[in-house]
Amino acid sequence: MRELLEAVAAGEVSPADAEARLAGYATDEAGRFDAARERRRGVPEAILGDGKTPAEAASLAATAVETAGRAIVTRTDPDQRRAIRDRLGEAHPDADVTVRDRSGVVVAHGPTFEPPSLDATVGVVTAGTSDAVPAGEAAAIAAEMGATVDRIDDVGVAALTRIVDQLEALRATDALVVAAGREGALPTVVAGLVDTPVIGLPVSTGYGHGGEGEAALSGMLQSCTVLSTVNVDAGFVAGAQAGLIARAVDR
Amino acid sequence: MRELLEAVAAGEVSPADAEARLAGYATDEAGRFDAARERRRGVPEAILGDGKTPAEAASLAATAVETAGRAIVTRTDPDQRRAIRDRLGEAHPDADVTVRDRSGVVVAHGPTFEPPSLDATVGVVTAGTSDAVPAGEAAAIAAEMGATVDRIDDVGVAALTRIVDQLEALRATDALVVAAGREGALPTVVAGLVDTPVIGLPVSTGYGHGGEGEAALSGMLQSCTVLSTVNVDAGFVAGAQAGLIARAVDR
Amino acid sequence: MRELLEAVAAGEVSPADAEARLAGYATDEAGRFDAARERRRGVPEAILGDGKTPAEAASLAATAVETAGRAIVTRTDPDQRRAIRDRLGEAHPDADVTVRDRSGVVVAHGPTFEPPSLDATVGVVTAGTSDAVPAGEAAAIAAEMGATVDRIDDVGVAALTRIVDQLEALRATDALVVAAGREGALPTVVAGLVDTPVIGLPVSTGYGHGGEGEAALSGMLQSCTVLSTVNVDAGFVAGAQAGLIARAVDR
Amino acid sequence: MRELLEAVAAGEVSPADAEARLAGYATDEAGRFDAARERRRGVPEAILGDGKTPAEAASLAATAVETAGRAIVTRTDPDQRRAIRDRLGEAHPDADVTVRDRSGVVVAHGPTFEPPSLDATVGVVTAGTSDAVPAGEAAAIAAEMGATVDRIDDVGVAALTRIVDQLEALRATDALVVAAGREGALPTVVAGLVDTPVIGLPVSTGYGHGGEGEAALSGMLQSCTVLSTVNVDAGFVAGAQAGLIARAVDR
Amino acid sequence: MRELLEAVAAGEVSPADAEARLAGYATDEAGRFDAARERRRGVPEAILGDGKTPAEAASLAATAVETAGRAIVTRTDPDQRRAIRDRLGEAHPDADVTVRDRSGVVVAHGPTFEPPSLDATVGVVTAGTSDAVPAGEAAAIAAEMGATVDRIDDVGVAALTRIVDQLEALRATDALVVAAGREGALPTVVAGLVDTPVIGLPVSTGYGHGGEGEAALSGMLQSCTVLSTVNVDAGFVAGAQAGLIARAVDR
Amino acid sequence: MRELLEAVAAGEVSPADAEARLAGYATDEAGRFDAARERRRGVPEAILGDGKTPAEAASLAATAVETAGRAIVTRTDPDQRRAIRDRLGEAHPDADVTVRDRSGVVVAHGPTFEPPSLDATVGVVTAGTSDAVPAGEAAAIAAEMGATVDRIDDVGVAALTRIVDQLEALRATDALVVAAGREGALPTVVAGLVDTPVIGLPVSTGYGHGGEGEAALSGMLQSCTVLSTVNVDAGFVAGAQAGLIARAVDR
Amino acid sequence: MRELLEAVAAGEVSPADAEARLAGYATDEAGRFDAARERRRGVPEAILGDGKTPAEAASLAATAVETAGRAIVTRTDPDQRRAIRDRLGEAHPDADVTVRDRSGVVVAHGPTFEPPSLDATVGVVTAGTSDAVPAGEAAAIAAEMGATVDRIDDVGVAALTRIVDQLEALRATDALVVAAGREGALPTVVAGLVDTPVIGLPVSTGYGHGGEGEAALSGMLQSCTVLSTVNVDAGFVAGAQAGLIARAVDR
Amino acid sequence: MRELLEAVAAGEVSPADAEARLAGYATDEAGRFDAARERRRGVPEAILGDGKTPAEAASLAATAVETAGRAIVTRTDPDQRRAIRDRLGEAHPDADVTVRDRSGVVVAHGPTFEPPSLDATVGVVTAGTSDAVPAGEAAAIAAEMGATVDRIDDVGVAALTRIVDQLEALRATDALVVAAGREGALPTVVAGLVDTPVIGLPVSTGYGHGGEGEAALSGMLQSCTVLSTVNVDAGFVAGAQAGLIARAVDR
Repeated sequence: MRELLEAVAAGEVSPADAEARLAGYATDEAGRFDAARERRRGVPEAILGDGKTPAEAASLAATAVETAGRAIVTRTDPDQRRAIRDRLGEAHPDADVTVRDRSGVVVAHGPTFEPPSLDATVGVVTAGTSDAVPAGEAAAIAAEMGATVDRIDDVGVAALTRIVDQLEALRATDALVVAAGREGALPTVVAGLVDTPVIGLPVSTGYGHGGEGEAALSGMLQSCTVLSTVNVDAGFVAGAQAGLIARAVDR
Repeated sequence: MRELLEAVAAGEVSPADAEARLAGYATDEAGRFDAARERRRGVPEAILGDGKTPAEAASLAATAVETAGRAIVTRTDPDQRRAIRDRLGEAHPDADVTVRDRSGVVVAHGPTFEPPSLDATVGVVTAGTSDAVPAGEAAAIAAEMGATVDRIDDVGVAALTRIVDQLEALRATDALVVAAGREGALPTVVAGLVDTPVIGLPVSTGYGHGGEGEAALSGMLQSCTVLSTVNVDAGFVAGAQAGLIARAVDR
Repeated sequence: MRELLEAVAAGEVSPADAEARLAGYATDEAGRFDAARERRRGVPEAILGDGKTPAEAASLAATAVETAGRAIVTRTDPDQRRAIRDRLGEAHPDADVTVRDRSGVVVAHGPTFEPPSLDATVGVVTAGTSDAVPAGEAAAIAAEMGATVDRIDDVGVAALTRIVDQLEALRATDALVVAAGREGALPTVVAGLVDTPVIGLPVSTGYGHGGEGEAALSGMLQSCTVLSTVNVDAGFVAGAQAGLIARAVDR
Repeated sequence: MRELLEAVAAGEVSPADAEARLAGYATDEAGRFDAARERRRGVPEAILGDGKTPAEAASLAATAVETAGRAIVTRTDPDQRRAIRDRLGEAHPDADVTVRDRSGVVVAHGPTFEPPSLDATVGVVTAGTSDAVPAGEAAAIAAEMGATVDRIDDVGVAALTRIVDQLEALRATDALVVAAGREGALPTVVAGLVDTPVIGLPVSTGYGHGGEGEAALSGMLQSCTVLSTVNVDAGFVAGAQAGLIARAVDR
Repeated sequence: MRELLEAVAAGEVSPADAEARLAGYATDEAGRFDAARERRRGVPEAILGDGKTPAEAASLAATAVETAGRAIVTRTDPDQRRAIRDRLGEAHPDADVTVRDRSGVVVAHGPTFEPPSLDATVGVVTAGTSDAVPAGEAAAIAAEMGATVDRIDDVGVAALTRIVDQLEALRATDALVVAAGREGALPTVVAGLVDTPVIGLPVSTGYGHGGEGEAALSGMLQSCTVLSTVNVDAGFVAGAQAGLIARAVDR
Repeated sequence: MRELLEAVAAGEVSPADAEARLAGYATDEAGRFDAARERRRGVPEAILGDGKTPAEAASLAATAVETAGRAIVTRTDPDQRRAIRDRLGEAHPDADVTVRDRSGVVVAHGPTFEPPSLDATVGVVTAGTSDAVPAGEAAAIAAEMGATVDRIDDVGVAALTRIVDQLEALRATDALVVAAGREGALPTVVAGLVDTPVIGLPVSTGYGHGGEGEAALSGMLQSCTVLSTVNVDAGFVAGAQAGLIARAVDR
Repeated sequence: MRELLEAVAAGEVSPADAEARLAGYATDEAGRFDAARERRRGVPEAILGDGKTPAEAASLAATAVETAGRAIVTRTDPDQRRAIRDRLGEAHPDADVTVRDRSGVVVAHGPTFEPPSLDATVGVVTAGTSDAVPAGEAAAIAAEMGATVDRIDDVGVAALTRIVDQLEALRATDALVVAAGREGALPTVVAGLVDTPVIGLPVSTGYGHGGEGEAALSGMLQSCTVLSTVNVDAGFVAGAQAGLIARAVDR
Repeated sequence: MRELLEAVAAGEVSPADAEARLAGYATDEAGRFDAARERRRGVPEAILGDGKTPAEAASLAATAVETAGRAIVTRTDPDQRRAIRDRLGEAHPDADVTVRDRSGVVVAHGPTFEPPSLDATVGVVTAGTSDAVPAGEAAAIAAEMGATVDRIDDVGVAALTRIVDQLEALRATDALVVAAGREGALPTVVAGLVDTPVIGLPVSTGYGHGGEGEAALSGMLQSCTVLSTVNVDAGFVAGAQAGLIARAVDR
């Protein structure tokens, strides 16, 4: 915030602009970044890389660090990641930037940002490598909300023993995000084994009838166990919901 | 066949009618029963109870016993079952009639009917009581085609230990029909544990999005293991396909 | 359990049957009641009234009280409620039976049943009277899992002031089930105002395109806020998921 | 019209061609532009940029200015906008050309064109930047039909206070076009607050189930308030319908 | 209102109840009637007969007359109409009750109710007798909002001359509701002939693919002319939207 | 055929190959061209350009001229058209080649090919330029089957007078193919005006709900007049069906 | 017509009513019967039994005989057939009434009605008894339009030899209506064997995915041969389209 | 296996990695290859080319040869095939590599790999060239599982005689995979002629309604004969299911 006020003092930002930013409506050339959202909802705002030019993504990331102290960018491609890294390197050389190539998530913390910390664990479970992007988003958001995140990967329903091997880890969590594409049976199988709330995260794998995650979604909605679900590939939403549960647990 | 020819001699059946029946196109007042189908395909003809009056169902059953030596009636309600039993009691008092209330299947063998017998086993697996009707149809048809049928019930994905308890039985079959409603994950889990061909049989349970068996069907089509499927509630088709595999095994 | 063993002693129940019941697979004439489910999952088993005769529903309810100490029956019609009340009156005169006509839920506690109690609150929110059945199911299940349940009714999006009036109550919960039919906007609006995890519960109101709850479901999946959802009319699942969150909070 | 007749006199346009154009069937190399539509319907004809080459779009724009005195081109990309500007600069240097990069709309008025003016206000409301294209089309068409257009942007349902802040502006209109993607709840919330006719404009944002604007469309059709709707992204239709209401108000 | 206060005085209604009713939240045994809606939105509240017992419908109608001075009941069957007439005859013998058998709409005005009157005309157009119910709802609501309503029936697209015969009547309106089932082409054809805003009202006729009004709805959304639409059979919404336009025109 | 036999004599084609070709199974490097189809069905075989390389399309066209005396290629792009023209120029310099850029249809007649001629007229009707491709295919196939083809363009339902102007031409045909996209109302309106059999041809225009021709198709299937339809963009099928009617008329 | 004028003379029908009827808009208490349709379109008007009371159906049938000389009623149930027969027996004792129980079609010719006669044959083909209703409608309408109708029944794709047996009969027609439910393959197989125009008539048999005729319809639209189709169960439309082809052939 | 252990000895692979590979979880830089799957299921693991870079596909193929002795890569494009061939040429110069351009399948056997051999025949049937990719996958997998594979191509339902010509070959198989796009009728017709189990393989040909294989899939599910099906284009699954049947036959 100091930076911003100094920018006003320096005439680089108009007072009107500053007011808007402080009120949570920071607007830059590439869109609007809602810095007040976290305060209202406890959920950090994320910037969706999809459909933005590298320059736009980078510009929004810089604004986010400036106004909210933190930037989270999801669904980035390599060009966007490079642009973000470069832009933050210039604008915020003292920011702490984490780039995850596999899930396409970039997180940056400004020097004065104090990340929240919750006494609660969120498990993020996947069946295979094709679940990496949405599961990675879920893990990143839950972590940014302060939860301890435990990744449990490669546990598919076609090989039950792998699931059974992880039973202890699964049961040690306060909330579970279980990603699955194709027929989407994994959350059902997991929810039958634990008493943690399970959030199903359907993944857009699969072709033909029920492809693109539709079979997985409808299978989770029809599950014969207890679980709630989010939309196909909505890793951000699943992770944030798990984070909200972690916050409730921590309270 | 003797009966029929005697009926012709007695003037009760016209020669033209008799010819048609012998050729496999027996026609009575309630529809057409295709007695030649078994010869062509190895699959016995079944009479669908749904949408027929008790009298129609009973009449077709009697014709079937007369022309093919055997009647199989599926999806019967109690009134139809009573009518069939009564009619067969009168027309074919020496027939062997089996009535299954739970699955709604009625099977009758005329006195001279020689049921086929195959050296092969078909397993029919269900998760719960709501799968009884289509699974019962599948079991009845496979048995009528000569397979030994092994029922493995109450093994749902929400309680994996029950499945594991049945592993030996599952593996001892030559073909498996696995019925499942709701999210339909059971065939996928079973197919991951055996090397028998699995035929998924989606059941029309479940309401809301993906209900009426649509989620189960699309989940089976999207399965991350190897299995083939039939339409929702198509127990006859699943059982007959398993029966055809049993015939191939027996050859 | 004593009752059961005495019944064995009296020759009314076979030892094999008793073993199955004690292991959690109590089977009576109308179906199977899985008394072990609560132990495994923390979620009480419920009996679905839909599609059962009054006698079947009553019989299962009595078995549930006998084996699990508690019966929860959902989607009952008046005839079923009468039959359950009568049967429990005979079989378990000392049971505590609660019948809710509006939501069709019946709950019975045997004399020795000790209901769980959690230090956590679940809010159940509705827009109007047509949400009564699934919302009532959700409330009953969450309460049976031990949560304090707070009903917040009649807050529709077409009259924002009613929602704003309830803001304090909404924010005082640890988990919220928000039921909505038609366009299903209420969970989105509520989730924008609180930092509690919100579980959207689409209700099968509305006709024409997107009717039967499909618009509500897809609107919740597409929500521009953070929430997870369950299938249309799946009040049991929504309430149990909220109950699992309450358990996590209480731990 | 004078231009055209002079072109005939000059032999540049054949009398047959001129007759067709005057009758409203101007045909050039890239398609047909129906100059008579405005007279019949009160709705100006627009040229859809999508799927046309820059040259085709520019050619149709020039024809429109020539025959109708005005060109409106929607869904243009930067290349098309450049081509149109260049072509009009040559063919109609005295035309007044407005290019809106954000919504992709280009409007050109020939020197003698007299824009209509209505004593009525159309409000165009958006939730965020992703609604810019269809909302911009709606605003442009309503303005070209003579209405005063009031843009009210950035009022999403996830932050109710922004809507409430704009209540006075919303109520001061004669017709409202409310654009919304994702779950499409904004028109419902707005319509609950005003007594102006609201036209819902679903926007093709959102992925997964109900994505591409389908959830928004079905939510608007299911709205628990009173509103009518147009197809997904049909900004032209929404704006023209609002313009027709403005004309009715002005009469 | 006097009646209510006297009921309070007489002890028949509690003060708390009275307060709620005066605030617009009248609650009786059959549901909730929102008397404040008209004040907020200019749209009268209607009671949906569908799914209510005759006694419930009659009770709500009586409450509506009592609290809002007027009752509008839609989708009534003959039993409901009889019950409403009887109940109002007892409770409000001086009310003016209009019962329309064809469209199933009942309207009752209490003795002191002053119906609004607008200087604007709404046309309601149908292709055939199967459009009677939703078109009748639309006409009733628009009339109750004060518009002059002009019914133009029996103008189907399969006989264009009938439409052309009505051109003058169609053009003399300020807003048009055009109902159509099957392929739903009538609103498109009408909108091509007039410059009045047209609201398409799809009707749930037709069977097979695109039946139940889905083809009509999608045809109206895809119309090559300008029109907005409402959901299938949503006669109330179409009429109220036309009434809101009439109010805007009258202002 | 002579050519082929001479090629055999010359050793350029093996006898086995020649036999296959004479039997109607000409096979070249790019696929299979079924020269016998016309003899069996009266419908000329067409080569679908879509998804083929220019070289493949050209090769199949040359084979078609060689074996059937005629080649019809549909859905060609400019590169394919160039390749076909070049290849035929080399391989069959005396063939008569017609290239239609607008509809993407190429027709080539070998020197000895005798086109059929029928005493019957097929009308092909379109609403606008976006119907050009499928309508052009329909017209080409009907013409190649020997019908006189009458094109009636630019008659949209939004301007009824244009249709009425063409009434005489429409009525002078023996079969009508009526193409329409968007809401697809044109075949319904035309069929209400003539007593010729009308074949509806839905065109894949339109976006949003019911786009890609789905609204047009379902509207034609739901038409309140008498017409049959073909699939979206199936110009070949519509034209061939009209050609079969023309053949029936000519017999 | 004489009857009508005498009724006018007798004061039983008002002159205004008579004029309407003569102009083709006969209106009676149960709906509107459009006697002019046949003159315009060559297609006789039919009365749809579905959804009418027996009295309504009978009344419309009597009006049809009176105004058009003929009544065709489709989709009748036994009660309606009895009522129609009784009413016509009273009102038009000299009419020639044909009742077909299997297809539910009733046809009545007044004494002076001269049925049309065409020199053309329409074949109506079915696979089994479940196609009886729509195929019977198609046959009745084509016959009423004057075509010779040839029924070819019991030719299913699962037994190709039956089809081949009928090849000569199939080829001897001028137009073919081919009805098929389930997978709907019959029209494709037939169209591959004849050069007559084939109209596919999908029948609403089959359950589960693609049931209710949807698979049959989409299979016909996707057919790899040439055929056009009508909507599911649209026997009237299929028969009338075949009748229009027969008229074209006869011309 | 020896190679691997030597690599451990040589320090090129860590012991942990080796353990994982021996346990069937070989992991390389491009994903995970499950070498244990064949042992568990009898179905060889295949690498899906789709969506992988040429380098990734080649790397996984090399790992597969190393750990399982065999690589099967499906849905490869020419670049991938080239990369695989190159990489295997370097890494495993003594492997036996088969590349099928038409179906995009690559199979490589390491020098010590002993292919299984079953005494059973799988027939793979196609209607045309557009079925080549999934049918080729099915054939390759069945062959790799040890079955004798018999390809029967070019037998479409539009030309029944071709099917009849192949009857003997069709009947000589133990299991049949029948591929078909468009209306998908071929498996139904074939299954009516043989008593071998038929697995329908829908192919994603066809455009418009029911295109992309949806009509074929639903037609197979609705088939009036006995067959099971797999998802659209799921050649791998169909071939593996046929292979499992062959294994059962061979036992």
